[in-house]
Amino acid sequence: MKVSELGEFRLIELLSGMAGQSADEESAARRQLIIGIGDDAAVWRGDDSIQLATTDFLVQDVHFSLEIASWQELGWRALAASLSDIAAMGGLPRYALVSLALPGFTEVDDVAAFYRGMLELAGQFGTVIIGGDMSAAPLLVISITVLGGTSGPFDPILTRSAARPGDKIAVTGTLGGAAAGLEMLTKQLKFSEEETTGLREAFTKPWPRVAEGQALVEQGVKAAIDISDGLLSDLGHICEMSRVSARIETESLPLHPAVTANFGDRGLELALGGGEDYELLFTAPAGVIAQVRAAVSCPVTVIGEITAAETGEITLLNGRGNLVEPPEKGWEHFSPGRA
Amino acid sequence: MKVSELGEFRLIELLSGMAGQSADEESAARRQLIIGIGDDAAVWRGDDSIQLATTDFLVQDVHFSLEIASWQELGWRALAASLSDIAAMGGLPRYALVSLALPGFTEVDDVAAFYRGMLELAGQFGTVIIGGDMSAAPLLVISITVLGGTSGPFDPILTRSAARPGDKIAVTGTLGGAAAGLEMLTKQLKFSEEETTGLREAFTKPWPRVAEGQALVEQGVKAAIDISDGLLSDLGHICEMSRVSARIETESLPLHPAVTANFGDRGLELALGGGEDYELLFTAPAGVIAQVRAAVSCPVTVIGEITAAETGEITLLNGRGNLVEPPEKGWEHFSPGRA
Repeated sequence: MKVSELGEFRLIELLSGMAGQSADEESAARRQLIIGIGDDAAVWRGDDSIQLATTDFLVQDVHFSLEIASWQELGWRALAASLSDIAAMGGLPRYALVSLALPGFTEVDDVAAFYRGMLELAGQFGTVIIGGDMSAAPLLVISITVLGGTSGPFDPILTRSAARPGDKIAVTGTLGGAAAGLEMLTKQLKFSEEETTGLREAFTKPWPRVAEGQALVEQGVKAAIDISDGLLSDLGHICEMSRVSARIETESLPLHPAVTANFGDRGLELALGGGEDYELLFTAPAGVIAQVRAAVSCPVTVIGEITAAETGEITLLNGRGNLVEPPEKGWEHFSPGRA
Repeated sequence: MKVSELGEFRLIELLSGMAGQSADEESAARRQLIIGIGDDAAVWRGDDSIQLATTDFLVQDVHFSLEIASWQELGWRALAASLSDIAAMGGLPRYALVSLALPGFTEVDDVAAFYRGMLELAGQFGTVIIGGDMSAAPLLVISITVLGGTSGPFDPILTRSAARPGDKIAVTGTLGGAAAGLEMLTKQLKFSEEETTGLREAFTKPWPRVAEGQALVEQGVKAAIDISDGLLSDLGHICEMSRVSARIETESLPLHPAVTANFGDRGLELALGGGEDYELLFTAPAGVIAQVRAAVSCPVTVIGEITAAETGEITLLNGRGNLVEPPEKGWEHFSPGRA
């Protein structure tokens, strides 16, 4: 069977099953492991604190195109994806390892600009780039690993498996801006100057919700994920790992204002399927969410509720309580029709 | 200027300079950092112990070909490269993050075999695969990050910058086997069954010298590197970072027996320039090396001496004390004539 027939998520399941079974049960590393493959980041018990690690691959013409954003923007966005994974576990990012494979004809200035973009973002969080690897390759491939920890010695973490029936579902910030920004840049759409800037930044300079992740932990939230593949897909991961289902009220979705203004009916599709907004999606009792809202400076919007069915189904309801047909689900590599 | 004109090592220097200057000096992560970009692994002070991280990129048709070794062998070799980096710092490998970018037409069985090869080696060291990422790509790219630590809370580590004039230079094991094995497989050379197996394994199943790295630390060695790019290139890294020079006696080099038997005069070139033997190259006073030899189960051979000149020059002398012309230096990506 080919990888394209199995699909990304089932391939990961297969490999993580192999990794889970085969390792020496007696190894100290195994005993200290809290979460292996399958959440936003791996988690283990260090000598004196909880440690986190996450890694992301970005492949030219799969994850990004050099034609629509600058190298500096690419550097920011690449690192943001990994910082966001640490944020979604309730961790603080500390160290990053950045590897680049690229053609020899690449301009050194472009590589330096890529690095500047990363360093600009890393500096915001006190994250230090401590290593990496460099290779020749026929196309640009970026691999970023970020290591982090909880802020207190054995602080709780946020996982995909902790959603409970009756929890409200909430998101930080606004949705659909990154997907709309990508579409605007790809199709060279023209909007007002303010909207153009807003959408470009939503796509090229996403802000990892590190402070908000900390606030979630402090207020007692247990379940969270970052929106990287798309809200529907990422909520699907929570439902599957928590063995619950979910109901979303589509009219509650906090669309990016420039999406509402310019994309009409397609706003819902961009918000639900678009991905790369890097907002936090989390579930908790309504009272806890109210506390989170008071504790953070960005919008926090309740968009639905976790329900009891173990099937992992996501139901979309409009303002009149009628079922809404879901748009195409979020990103999955190797899914039919893809490379 | 293009990357191919600058070369890999100067590009890394440029980027590590940027990373070193720009980060917030006040960040806790920065204060705890002991070694950033430039050694076999990054090193920082954890709450209660020394932490290590290293990352390696392997790109199809640059680092490996799927035509000459099996997927399972590729898995072993890919992980071995990173475990070896941790060994060369005197650390114990604990966790690995493994990312794969591959075409959709890849067979799932091949990916599983790759994973089996990794897990087989990981199990030998109690190392657990805890995460990774998966992407579509037109060719196979592997990114492996390994995290480790010292065995005692604040044990010393082995660095590239600690070689001192008067130190003897020593290597573990034998040299040139991996390069000879690669050449044998590529050119389909025929040797005796035993030699064929030996050379194939030297290339496809290198053994990371983790136990030997521990012994080096215990016996008081301070300077080490693993031989990945080639002895001359890797010794060059030690000389440059320690601001010393080196003299190698070519007749002392412990060639792999199947290299001596089958590659005649080219043995020297394979041993000095070949790379991927993943033996440890280290420097220490003669007495310390004698203690190391008594403490480990593999051969330990003195091959030369560190000298005082700060120029980083490596002189090769034959048995009669005459200068030997160096073969081509070890691997450098983007060097003239390469992609």
